[in-house]
Amino acid sequence: MKLIRYGAPGMEKPGIFREGNYYDVSKFFRDYDEAFFEGGGLELLGELDKEGALKQIMVERLGCPIKRPSKIVCIGLNYSDHAKETGATPPSEPVIFLKSTTAIIGPNDAVRIPRGAEKTDWEVELAVVIGKKASYIEKDKAMDYVAGYCLHNDISERAFQLEMGGTWDKGKGCDTFAPIGPWLVTKDEIDDVHSLRLWLKLNGHLMQNGSTSNLIFDIPALVAYTSCFMTLLPGDIISTGTPAGVGLGMKPNLYLKAGDIMELGIDGLGESRQELVAFDQI
Amino acid sequence: MKLIRYGAPGMEKPGIFREGNYYDVSKFFRDYDEAFFEGGGLELLGELDKEGALKQIMVERLGCPIKRPSKIVCIGLNYSDHAKETGATPPSEPVIFLKSTTAIIGPNDAVRIPRGAEKTDWEVELAVVIGKKASYIEKDKAMDYVAGYCLHNDISERAFQLEMGGTWDKGKGCDTFAPIGPWLVTKDEIDDVHSLRLWLKLNGHLMQNGSTSNLIFDIPALVAYTSCFMTLLPGDIISTGTPAGVGLGMKPNLYLKAGDIMELGIDGLGESRQELVAFDQI
Repeated sequence: MKLIRYGAPGMEKPGIFREGNYYDVSKFFRDYDEAFFEGGGLELLGELDKEGALKQIMVERLGCPIKRPSKIVCIGLNYSDHAKETGATPPSEPVIFLKSTTAIIGPNDAVRIPRGAEKTDWEVELAVVIGKKASYIEKDKAMDYVAGYCLHNDISERAFQLEMGGTWDKGKGCDTFAPIGPWLVTKDEIDDVHSLRLWLKLNGHLMQNGSTSNLIFDIPALVAYTSCFMTLLPGDIISTGTPAGVGLGMKPNLYLKAGDIMELGIDGLGESRQELVAFDQI
Repeated sequence: MKLIRYGAPGMEKPGIFREGNYYDVSKFFRDYDEAFFEGGGLELLGELDKEGALKQIMVERLGCPIKRPSKIVCIGLNYSDHAKETGATPPSEPVIFLKSTTAIIGPNDAVRIPRGAEKTDWEVELAVVIGKKASYIEKDKAMDYVAGYCLHNDISERAFQLEMGGTWDKGKGCDTFAPIGPWLVTKDEIDDVHSLRLWLKLNGHLMQNGSTSNLIFDIPALVAYTSCFMTLLPGDIISTGTPAGVGLGMKPNLYLKAGDIMELGIDGLGESRQELVAFDQI
């Protein structure tokens, strides 16, 4: 299944996307939140969908397909080509940081350059959505805790992240820095999550063109590892890192400016498109 | 006012504490969450309290006085004596990191040493609770966005934080690493938040004995600064850093072990007490 949330920002309703059409499920489920995943919502949704009783709808705007989770865990430097382009040594164990959930927007919403920012950058990533509470999970059981996957653009402000002291979190959680979607694709729809192409175009030029086959730490490893440092709740997101081709890796560096258009996609997880806007534009 | 939440973990109800007695307010408010603060809940609660119609209750366990917020922002190295003891240079601007909200427990709950951990450490801190949505706030308006304050023990695992690659977040968000409370004390009850004594005892020995007068960046500065990197939502927490006297600063280092007892307090914000338990004990 492909889960969507649609409607005005902050007022999104749950729905599904199937064969080019959208269907509402807000009569049956309040939202795609922690309680939904924890209460077996995905299974119930599957049954409803089979009955063919869902109401088709027109959708003007998609939101993030998950209601604000308790956390977004991001994995840094998890593709060796990206680690190399940033001048970092590939890590010997996963690099973890947290991204403020207030950064979440819909897949095609505008991304706002923060006040005073000059180094806003893109990062196409595969985001894993947790399906049930996970603490100290073994790697060989880790996929049981995964609900599905989303496309995520892990926007970063490199000066805030790297030049202002402290941890990366300062440059990762600005408002609009987490366009997620279009869909939450349940794991049964993806044959091999470790052989998906992921790409990002800036103003029509292909900047990132990678494959999840090049993940340094694969998805079961990331779920298991992260769950040893913090409990993962249903709906929580682990964003698995980005391949080479970000602005920080260009010589000279290339950063985003108002009017730029990012388009990105991952095989089977859909595409998204964001326009950059200046700080005072929204 | 002093807000409390009471009851079994995950089932807490809202109440208040006044002159040695507890009162339930769950008939009037669902919980002390984002909607409560955003909807003027504090003002309504103040009026209810004046009417004297609240039902007195017995309380066996206190939870964190705020329902799980969207984020806990922590400020690192914000007391010069603590920066010095850890060997760090006092920062020229606030150091920000995020603490997973799944770490939150009640003020007197047990703290669990994570699996394989040998460097679990304490940090008494004053936590600021945000009262309304804050984005790009000026310092001279920042206190308008503060609802009140809590006592927080920002437990850390130093090996996870400092020796395992990546950001500090790995060693700050383990389950039970954020005992918060006993109370959320509204800001009107604290005459000068920048001259409060804060202290922590380990097994009866005074380890930390500081004053918020020694904060490098004061509370309005922290609220204003943080709000330029991420929107702060009602109920969000900014934990303002710890004074000298943590285990990492001892020579030789001194870390927590099962059976240890931490007691801590801040003038006007109450006291808390946590026992350390081994990984497999809870």
